Amino acid sequence: MIQYDGRPFVGWQRQKNGLAVQECIEEACLKIIGRRCAAHGAGRTDSGVHAAGQVASIRMRTKLGAREIKSALNALLPPEIRVLASRRAAYEFHAQNHAVQKTYRYLLLCAPMRSPFAPYYAAWLPYPLSLEPMRRASEHLTGKHDFRSFMGRGNAVKSTVRTLKDVEIKRGGGMISFHFTADGFLKQMVRILVGTLVEVGRGKIKPERIAEILAAIDRRSAGPTAPPEGLTLMRVEY
Amino acid sequence: MIQYDGRPFVGWQRQKNGLAVQECIEEACLKIIGRRCAAHGAGRTDSGVHAAGQVASIRMRTKLGAREIKSALNALLPPEIRVLASRRAAYEFHAQNHAVQKTYRYLLLCAPMRSPFAPYYAAWLPYPLSLEPMRRASEHLTGKHDFRSFMGRGNAVKSTVRTLKDVEIKRGGGMISFHFTADGFLKQMVRILVGTLVEVGRGKIKPERIAEILAAIDRRSAGPTAPPEGLTLMRVEY
Repeated sequence: MIQYDGRPFVGWQRQKNGLAVQECIEEACLKIIGRRCAAHGAGRTDSGVHAAGQVASIRMRTKLGAREIKSALNALLPPEIRVLASRRAAYEFHAQNHAVQKTYRYLLLCAPMRSPFAPYYAAWLPYPLSLEPMRRASEHLTGKHDFRSFMGRGNAVKSTVRTLKDVEIKRGGGMISFHFTADGFLKQMVRILVGTLVEVGRGKIKPERIAEILAAIDRRSAGPTAPPEGLTLMRVEY
Repeated sequence: MIQYDGRPFVGWQRQKNGLAVQECIEEACLKIIGRRCAAHGAGRTDSGVHAAGQVASIRMRTKLGAREIKSALNALLPPEIRVLASRRAAYEFHAQNHAVQKTYRYLLLCAPMRSPFAPYYAAWLPYPLSLEPMRRASEHLTGKHDFRSFMGRGNAVKSTVRTLKDVEIKRGGGMISFHFTADGFLKQMVRILVGTLVEVGRGKIKPERIAEILAAIDRRSAGPTAPPEGLTLMRVEY
């Protein structure tokens, strides 16, 4: 299990325009065993998105045990990436393909001013939101739907149908937290869901309109994409 | 009242080697009223030290009200510095000279690994500490003493006698917090107190030795200077 502060990275996946978390891990593995190996992450977190429970599968031929690999990785990785747990898996195990469900959290600090002590993994909104309409809107979102209206551009996927198992919206610690659990997520799906729910929470979109937005199968019908800093991949289940 | 994340700054006071919090505030005031004015801070926090409740007095001739000055400052200051409250004071008021007592907090994360989600305003120690001996040691520290053994170099002061009114050491949220309240603090005093208490907490210095360290009136008798990132100026009272 891997945690990272997404701020210094271009995201999980290797990119040409900057340093990726995957790249850091693969480079560290290369230093440890002296051979290139690929790290497959359960979730391809975007640039600036954090992970509290990312899972990656790496095939490596080595006599080192899982504990030793974890220690070696933590010694070589930048402090923004930490390996919390490491274990031997079946040869066929693939962190992304075998994931059954994932949970993402989006944290919003709704306050007139952003305190320098606010956690870096929360996004900031300078106005308040009503929870009740957002909760009613989220009831329209749960279940098996074509989420194409909530998908960012640029990723070819076979199907845009996903099952959103649970949406939890809570207030606490001066912040609003959104937890989304699904069998899988489309590109930027959580950020567009949050961007749309925020419009509901400030009274710009009625909760009932969510059904229409889903039915439109058109990105333009949904709200804006919430910024990456509030998003954290919390858990992957197999 | 001013909050700041001390990481990007060389401390409160203007320095030649980098950007100071005082400088940011004075430059913002210059932009607001078009004239240079001096900002006197209650505590001269070191490079990398944070403030949750710094107080500064600024003499400025303006028709703007306290609220407008606060808004203008927040619009001009970097996001790491926020003015939480601002009010008109008596002409003679001086934030440093008139302070009656100050409270500093030092936060220590004692864990084998530093999580990327740990707060930036906590220092990290990779080993555990025992609270009981540190609390016994702190009983020797409270009261009116010559704290020269706990003073860093480079600041000329008339007297090194201070009254340490209260030391509170608690465990919570996976961290150890130290709160120090005194009528004033010498340069690096809190960081050297913490550095010494940590030596007590890991069994390297016996709690009873604190009395000897105080009596030595010699910096070399105390423990090391704890790093700046764990320290926060919490409150100034008048």
